[in-house]
Amino acid sequence: MSERIWTAGLVVIGDEILSGRTQDKNVAQIALWLNVQGIRLSEVRVVPDVQERIVEAVNAVRTGYDYCFTTGGIGPTHDDITVDAIAAALGVPVVVHPQARAVLEKHYETRGGLTEARLRMARVPEGADLIVNRMSGAPGIRIGNVLILAGVPSITAGMLDALTGTLEGGRPVVSGTLGCWVAESEIADLLRATEKAHAGVAIGSYPFFREGTTGANFVVRATDQSLVDACIADLTQRLAETGREVVAGGI
Amino acid sequence: MSERIWTAGLVVIGDEILSGRTQDKNVAQIALWLNVQGIRLSEVRVVPDVQERIVEAVNAVRTGYDYCFTTGGIGPTHDDITVDAIAAALGVPVVVHPQARAVLEKHYETRGGLTEARLRMARVPEGADLIVNRMSGAPGIRIGNVLILAGVPSITAGMLDALTGTLEGGRPVVSGTLGCWVAESEIADLLRATEKAHAGVAIGSYPFFREGTTGANFVVRATDQSLVDACIADLTQRLAETGREVVAGGI
Repeated sequence: MSERIWTAGLVVIGDEILSGRTQDKNVAQIALWLNVQGIRLSEVRVVPDVQERIVEAVNAVRTGYDYCFTTGGIGPTHDDITVDAIAAALGVPVVVHPQARAVLEKHYETRGGLTEARLRMARVPEGADLIVNRMSGAPGIRIGNVLILAGVPSITAGMLDALTGTLEGGRPVVSGTLGCWVAESEIADLLRATEKAHAGVAIGSYPFFREGTTGANFVVRATDQSLVDACIADLTQRLAETGREVVAGGI
Repeated sequence: MSERIWTAGLVVIGDEILSGRTQDKNVAQIALWLNVQGIRLSEVRVVPDVQERIVEAVNAVRTGYDYCFTTGGIGPTHDDITVDAIAAALGVPVVVHPQARAVLEKHYETRGGLTEARLRMARVPEGADLIVNRMSGAPGIRIGNVLILAGVPSITAGMLDALTGTLEGGRPVVSGTLGCWVAESEIADLLRATEKAHAGVAIGSYPFFREGTTGANFVVRATDQSLVDACIADLTQRLAETGREVVAGGI
């Protein structure tokens, strides 16, 4: 099995995210899905519905990581410019994909027919394949290492489902969590020392305040379950030695 | 009043967002707050807890926009490297800010005293001012056009509250919404024509599916309320002429 770390970047396209009107759900959804594919989400950029800004972000991400995902801007309206922008980024024309056209024709057969606006959703950068979406009909688009997904999270989920297992990736990242009723500032040195003692392991510290008491969860990540288990065991012992209550699995 | 458009970019610093463990809340929170300050959020980058990646993103954003906000990575633990990274980006050393030290000394007086780890939270890039936070004690940091905020959304909110009205900005963006029980693909041309007829106005189209019926909300944005009102009136009339039910204020 390859030890190489596979990486992805995500370009979120949407004025509605930058205006604060819509709470993004796709970053977390795609991140969790990528973990299972053995690919690490390494950067996200949120850009407005402006062609040159999309082109710039897509070119930076597709050349900087193994995969470039995008979400948003593939519907039928005038503000849906993702396909045009990505075709421009890749220097290819936009064409109507025959299979996408057939899917849409069938979908709209009993819904008023395939209008000019609806046909916009069959447009792809030349040379692209479809990400056929068993759940909602609307296909995503794949061209080279660029994967073009919908913005509506439930539709994005259907496209991710269709992509599951089709991308080359490395080892999945595994993790373990433990919680402790402690202010993180009191055990910062302990955490640093524990992480240093376990090569290949990263410890994240996530404090919270509940019912007037401070606590923190510690998430241990590695590509090897035995490394995670050894670090969790060590950290549990070190925290217990300070006299605090440690909660396996997190609080 | 200036007609200039004031812009900001946001760098979200955090492995926990990229791993999918934590759902970001700060993008929407900061976007909405910026709208009220008359500043437009124009780009977001989410980067991992890796110094060179933070430096790169902060330098791109602080030189590309009027303001560069950051969230995350200013706690007391080893994975909190935001201050060091931003000092490196600006080419200045890290120093202990006397006022921040005093605030922390007072805060921890009855909580075990100011340890070395806790003192990390008083470190700032040389030349920085504090964003004094009336709500939780922990200060944010302001240096030049860079504003360094916490990652925990409730603490971020306290820092934004302290910043309210202190940044130079342009006109606030105002918006109006209307809803319609229509598939957006059926009125894509109508929307495009309406936007074109109203200079200075942007129309966003946000479809939804509820109880088996498709509908969409249309958000009209401009920096002038009279432009928004005129566009809403026009769009309402055009949609009503197609025989659909239009819902003022959105569905």
